[in-house]
Amino acid sequence: MTLTLALAEKIIDGTLSYARTNNVNPLAVVVLDAGAHPVAFKRQDKASLYRFDIALAKAKGALGMGFNTRGIAEKAKNNPTFFASVTTISGVELALSPGGNLIKDGLGNIIGAIGISGDSGEVDELCAQAGIDAVATELEDN
Amino acid sequence: MTLTLALAEKIIDGTLSYARTNNVNPLAVVVLDAGAHPVAFKRQDKASLYRFDIALAKAKGALGMGFNTRGIAEKAKNNPTFFASVTTISGVELALSPGGNLIKDGLGNIIGAIGISGDSGEVDELCAQAGIDAVATELEDN
Amino acid sequence: MTLTLALAEKIIDGTLSYARTNNVNPLAVVVLDAGAHPVAFKRQDKASLYRFDIALAKAKGALGMGFNTRGIAEKAKNNPTFFASVTTISGVELALSPGGNLIKDGLGNIIGAIGISGDSGEVDELCAQAGIDAVATELEDN
Amino acid sequence: MTLTLALAEKIIDGTLSYARTNNVNPLAVVVLDAGAHPVAFKRQDKASLYRFDIALAKAKGALGMGFNTRGIAEKAKNNPTFFASVTTISGVELALSPGGNLIKDGLGNIIGAIGISGDSGEVDELCAQAGIDAVATELEDN
Repeated sequence: MTLTLALAEKIIDGTLSYARTNNVNPLAVVVLDAGAHPVAFKRQDKASLYRFDIALAKAKGALGMGFNTRGIAEKAKNNPTFFASVTTISGVELALSPGGNLIKDGLGNIIGAIGISGDSGEVDELCAQAGIDAVATELEDN
Repeated sequence: MTLTLALAEKIIDGTLSYARTNNVNPLAVVVLDAGAHPVAFKRQDKASLYRFDIALAKAKGALGMGFNTRGIAEKAKNNPTFFASVTTISGVELALSPGGNLIKDGLGNIIGAIGISGDSGEVDELCAQAGIDAVATELEDN
Repeated sequence: MTLTLALAEKIIDGTLSYARTNNVNPLAVVVLDAGAHPVAFKRQDKASLYRFDIALAKAKGALGMGFNTRGIAEKAKNNPTFFASVTTISGVELALSPGGNLIKDGLGNIIGAIGISGDSGEVDELCAQAGIDAVATELEDN
Repeated sequence: MTLTLALAEKIIDGTLSYARTNNVNPLAVVVLDAGAHPVAFKRQDKASLYRFDIALAKAKGALGMGFNTRGIAEKAKNNPTFFASVTTISGVELALSPGGNLIKDGLGNIIGAIGISGDSGEVDELCAQAGIDAVATELEDN
């Protein structure tokens, strides 16, 4: 299954719908395809300037390591020197905080990732999950 | 006037509506605010991988130099060594092709820029203009 | 409200006036607009060479994260791996020390930031606040 | 002779005074010391975003090569491949256009440089010279 622009937009809109209902801080939300290339991005009014960069680094990091960034951040706590070295490798971007989640189809294949920044990592992750949940049926159908 | 996410989405949707009607190649479309920070981005299915980077460089270049990229590209033809040197300056991105257009409010203030890549520079520019035209009333009202 | 050159100069002069009265070490002081682009900069005689870069990173960091750098530095103490990773993201600059303060107009909108380096972070921050205080009336009038 | 902040401010103010009298486009003006480190910078309202970067590259280039950028740009026309290669060297910044001028004391020693961007290279250079002329007596006295 390929992550189309139509699907990416539904994911982002699902995220922002959840964020508005739950009074989340202004967010930047990016969806990448399986190759870690941006498909769609939206930054809410008054989100601060690094939010795009951090959201992108969360989504890239999830794809780059093959785990949601919550899991990567937990590993990093136990092995900080390894992760400090990884982040200095050219081409590698990682933001060691929850809010970067893999997007998988019904067969378990990774088709992309969503990255979110703007609130706490905990809240960013809830928003990321809400976006993926909004297209759960379409992901399963595949 | 501030370039909100709501306005950026209308501009991108105006661009993509024009593109679909006119059988344009798959596009990447990015809208930046006045400080050259991304507000929204969409990449159509099958647009190739560098399209995001090129669209971004067009929009940044327009804001960086204060002209649409068509005008910058024309200046560059008469002064290639200067523009070759400028593109190597840290922090400077320029894509010397039409398709990066300034977005101005009714008072003539620059509030952002749109950058497009995917078809020829000429067609990219028509799509950029179509996106801006789609919000002409809102821009004038300010 | 837009952060004009005239306003930026008053902020910097307010900072340097405070610094001279209080025997502060030689400072670098930069004022950025809301998009994190430099409006004005002054480096006092005998300020060391990295002071410009550090002052810039403080001001950019405040705008990038949406907090004064004192607050960012405090968050970083509790979450060092996240902030270590963030500083390696392309385009992100952070100096985790007080002295990078947001400049807000009377409506609470962020219109820019001031970054200072040269003395201790505590003193740098007092100088930053003195600069903003020097234009308090103009900021409120908006 | 050392290029002090007081002297740099007089140079920039001389430049901006000339620019206002002669209806020059909005400028970015930077003054560097002999080590190519920024002493002072001002960006006029509505100067476009790359003007800081280009002004800096002009001033750095003048100091880096030991000539005003007018002379460097002329050399580059006759030897474009060499200058194209030079601009790709890490740490090297050059903007091959007039407007980056060396500042010399009365003994002919280089004490810094001024870089200007915002209008044509020809006009930028006139503004740079006006700034240096504004402190001619102080430079000679040394």
